[in-house]
Amino acid sequence: MDRSLIFENTICALATGNGGALGIIRVSGAESLAICGKFFSPSNKRLILGESQGYTILFGEIVDGGQVIDEVLVSVFRSPRSYTGEDSVEISCHASRYIQKRILELLIENGAVAARPGEFTQRAFFNGKIDLSQAEAVADLIASESKLAHKIAIEQMRGSFSDEIGQLRSQLLHFATMIELELDFSEEDVEFADRKKLKKIIEKSLSVSERLTSSFSMGNVIKNGIPVAIIGNPNTGKSTLLNSLLNEERAIVSEIPGTTRDTIEDVKVIDNIQFRFIDTAGIRQTDDIIENMGIARTMEKIEKAQVILLVADINSGVQALSQFLEDIRNKIEGSDKELIVLVNKIDGILPGSIADFVGQIPIYHNEKLLFISAKTGEGMEGLIEVLSSIALRYIKSTENVIVSNIRHYEALIQVNQSLKRVIHGLDLNLSGDLIAMDLRQAIHYFGSITGQITNDEILGNIFKNFCIGK
Amino acid sequence: MDRSLIFENTICALATGNGGALGIIRVSGAESLAICGKFFSPSNKRLILGESQGYTILFGEIVDGGQVIDEVLVSVFRSPRSYTGEDSVEISCHASRYIQKRILELLIENGAVAARPGEFTQRAFFNGKIDLSQAEAVADLIASESKLAHKIAIEQMRGSFSDEIGQLRSQLLHFATMIELELDFSEEDVEFADRKKLKKIIEKSLSVSERLTSSFSMGNVIKNGIPVAIIGNPNTGKSTLLNSLLNEERAIVSEIPGTTRDTIEDVKVIDNIQFRFIDTAGIRQTDDIIENMGIARTMEKIEKAQVILLVADINSGVQALSQFLEDIRNKIEGSDKELIVLVNKIDGILPGSIADFVGQIPIYHNEKLLFISAKTGEGMEGLIEVLSSIALRYIKSTENVIVSNIRHYEALIQVNQSLKRVIHGLDLNLSGDLIAMDLRQAIHYFGSITGQITNDEILGNIFKNFCIGK
Repeated sequence: MDRSLIFENTICALATGNGGALGIIRVSGAESLAICGKFFSPSNKRLILGESQGYTILFGEIVDGGQVIDEVLVSVFRSPRSYTGEDSVEISCHASRYIQKRILELLIENGAVAARPGEFTQRAFFNGKIDLSQAEAVADLIASESKLAHKIAIEQMRGSFSDEIGQLRSQLLHFATMIELELDFSEEDVEFADRKKLKKIIEKSLSVSERLTSSFSMGNVIKNGIPVAIIGNPNTGKSTLLNSLLNEERAIVSEIPGTTRDTIEDVKVIDNIQFRFIDTAGIRQTDDIIENMGIARTMEKIEKAQVILLVADINSGVQALSQFLEDIRNKIEGSDKELIVLVNKIDGILPGSIADFVGQIPIYHNEKLLFISAKTGEGMEGLIEVLSSIALRYIKSTENVIVSNIRHYEALIQVNQSLKRVIHGLDLNLSGDLIAMDLRQAIHYFGSITGQITNDEILGNIFKNFCIGK
Repeated sequence: MDRSLIFENTICALATGNGGALGIIRVSGAESLAICGKFFSPSNKRLILGESQGYTILFGEIVDGGQVIDEVLVSVFRSPRSYTGEDSVEISCHASRYIQKRILELLIENGAVAARPGEFTQRAFFNGKIDLSQAEAVADLIASESKLAHKIAIEQMRGSFSDEIGQLRSQLLHFATMIELELDFSEEDVEFADRKKLKKIIEKSLSVSERLTSSFSMGNVIKNGIPVAIIGNPNTGKSTLLNSLLNEERAIVSEIPGTTRDTIEDVKVIDNIQFRFIDTAGIRQTDDIIENMGIARTMEKIEKAQVILLVADINSGVQALSQFLEDIRNKIEGSDKELIVLVNKIDGILPGSIADFVGQIPIYHNEKLLFISAKTGEGMEGLIEVLSSIALRYIKSTENVIVSNIRHYEALIQVNQSLKRVIHGLDLNLSGDLIAMDLRQAIHYFGSITGQITNDEILGNIFKNFCIGK
């Protein structure tokens, strides 16, 4: 990709969300200051935007043909000391839709172009400010809603994942060079690369790469939330349970002004991990409808879930639950899914009934049986504790570098296969050129993660998922 | 109100909306820099936040017990050169809910308190950075969605309204002082204040104040939008008409990336003025239901509207329309409401039918008759033109200062009454003390607009309607 083609224009975009009091309009490119200078008038008439130093702020007015549009703060950044590496300007204006639209129009009328999603970050990547895996982490960071998702994203953004990949890659690169050197001298039958040492290093690389690959299921769950299915017969109180779980969260979220969410999704953060309730909208709509009993639909939900909350009505007796439980057990046998049996509606029930129930339902050691009243909240803290213990396992896993990006995961799988072929080739004492080929493959896939090796299509796919303004 | 009570703490709030790439967290108060310094670590280790000059930016990390929360830009403002007049900091972070929440928590853990709605602007008012009418304009500015609403707000924020009020008030103040001086010398029967000159000035003040008062209906419409009622029998195509009007607007709004609206309200900006459709959700829901024909409901909508779009189906014939039209005319007689008759569904109709229709429906000079097809868009540009000509009248009105705030309007009504009593008193040659009393009343109400005279309750009411972070 020709850099000069990409960077010949100056881009602009609104970088903040809807509502609020303030908005930021970002401008980046060689003409940033010149373009903004055409309609920004500093209050201090001795200051000139185009002559301002980086990391300074000017207060003044956006003037559109004599009419003042807004009083704004303009932050100036000078190449290369900016996010993109280019000259950049950030205009902090009032969060009026009219004002923001008008300033963007002024920018475009004066020569800027509307930025594509992720274009600021893309420029940072092309200008060598960050590598590709760091660029991808920026999008994850913005989307992070829980402490652990945030931790993975920020560590990746700050380069810990790139460092790990980079180290492995440079070791392999060293040996590949050695082997290829042998090929030049092939008639002399020399070995620059110590095969034993090489095998040891490949094995170490493979073990790191395999650890990273296997961390993906953890990483994916942390990033997107632990999928939870709430299942059970109609009228067992599934909706009440969900509301009871979510309502609590709403209160916590709105504790700090300004963080209130526009829409309440069916997610809940427990101990820094997000739990995501599968297809719960559907549950709430069709809770009372008999069709909902369809076992196929339940099985589908279980398929997608990591945690299964099986809700039963204590008044329906043991028999109703037993059969259902048996079906579920058959379904999840051999998987690492967690089954939690919730016997609901214990409010107003004689204490003896619970003891009876416990005696008649066999619960295996990897399952949990809890008695609750979703309505009164009785026993709900026990459920939270169980979910909390599940969260804890994920938290422990984040002590190491974790892969949470499917593109990286897929590249690592390719790396693993290539490295295995290298080991196999060494065991068979294959010639250097064959080994070098597989080595180069592994190096290629490592490089595709950090962006040393890339192509337009991959880049296009990565940045199109960004929000505009980043 | 004791200033020291208000300003003893340092406040913080998220100032940007939901979503987007970036967020701004505002901090204001004497401890702003000290508090942020506890968890902000500049990348350039030679820089110290607490020693930074105003209008400079530092790049660095928010660190929470060893864990990096985000890489941020911190803008520093020094008292009195800040929005509030206090030492202030703005933290520009990534727009992750987790990050924003954690930074706010860190601020609060380190001694800041969560800002109340409008508290930054309230501090600006108390610190003499802006007067009360300017402070109120800030909220209007943020809410402004059309060019004219924006124009009124920004002119008010920049003090043009305050200046006009201030001039009137200081003239009255001068004369009040003179008259009160006479009272001190009352036994000597002197006249410091020239009664004729006073009357002239009072009359001039009254005329300005009355002009401002009468501008309120204009100002209110510009600020909140021109209310439009779409009425007509069921199945005449009212919903299709509304959708046709609104869809066009959606395309315009989303033209510039980043300005797309979350929810489409039933408003449309034509020629810089917002048209607001009354109770249209209701129309769409009950369009086909016979109850909707209830004349009471239609009359209620007409009551609230400035513009009435009466929709008829050309296939229903002239008779159906005539009776309806007569009822509406009786209802709006003597008002300044605009009636536009829209004969709909002309697609596929023989050209002769339209001519027939025109001949049979008498349209008065202040009404409009248009033939449209809301479905195909035929004739819609004619409707837009008519609405545009209505908008034009409002645009002309904004050449002068306009009142758009109901609190100001109510104060001006009191001013007018007081000034009329002064004139009446002068005509009757009343004694100075009685005239001074009414003069003082007018001065008081003028002062309440700009905030020279105020009380906690008024302030509380004004700022509680602000968004948090401003």
